Amino acid sequence: MAFELHHRLAADCFLIGDFSLCRALLVDDNRFPWCILVPRRAALCDLHDLAETDRAALFDEIDVVSRVLKELHGADKINVAALGNQVPQLHVHVISRRVDDAAWPGPVWGVGTAVPYAEGLAEAAQLKQAFKL
Amino acid sequence: MAFELHHRLAADCFLIGDFSLCRALLVDDNRFPWCILVPRRAALCDLHDLAETDRAALFDEIDVVSRVLKELHGADKINVAALGNQVPQLHVHVISRRVDDAAWPGPVWGVGTAVPYAEGLAEAAQLKQAFKL
Repeated sequence: MAFELHHRLAADCFLIGDFSLCRALLVDDNRFPWCILVPRRAALCDLHDLAETDRAALFDEIDVVSRVLKELHGADKINVAALGNQVPQLHVHVISRRVDDAAWPGPVWGVGTAVPYAEGLAEAAQLKQAFKL
Repeated sequence: MAFELHHRLAADCFLIGDFSLCRALLVDDNRFPWCILVPRRAALCDLHDLAETDRAALFDEIDVVSRVLKELHGADKINVAALGNQVPQLHVHVISRRVDDAAWPGPVWGVGTAVPYAEGLAEAAQLKQAFKL
């Protein structure tokens, strides 16, 4: 079975590009610099479904995204989470948080209403370059 | 500098035991089978602060906790998250979720009021055995 991006992720995000393991997405919510990494493997649901041989790559890719978001946006904290209650396909949120952001100190999920980017494609292109994809 | 568990984590959780890398805690909230893994390293804040040499152990320990919670509680989904907006010490939540739980399909943080365990020490002891600690 081939990997196929879940339609909800495709609808809610801009494509940044593909790391060796994950597809990198930018959530279309200008309030938080917020990426999602989706391992390009079929039929994964929970984090522990990931093959052991893919774990190092996932960690490396989380590391790259975290450091870039922190550098670009002056994050006070990086939130990393694999939840998947609403979209069952395994995906990992990497979110740059600041003490003055719209949800601090709570988590971002379900808080208020997303503010779409004016230039989401440009933002995704900038991240693609920063991630060296 | 030696590892010392953050006082908020110590206050809100029962001690389960120590894996090779992490201290395993049980959050005192009977609504959700909810563990926290705290790498026993000083001065870690974000997930990407973890040394590369410790990553495999963290993943292994998340894997053990996830599988045990899923087995014991018939989880529909396991949520794994390193947030740390309120407690800056790096810690990883591993939470067993069911479609009939008090927060589904949202995340558990900040939802309602924690329901303390009647027998938290016994629950922690059961998990210690299941985690083979």
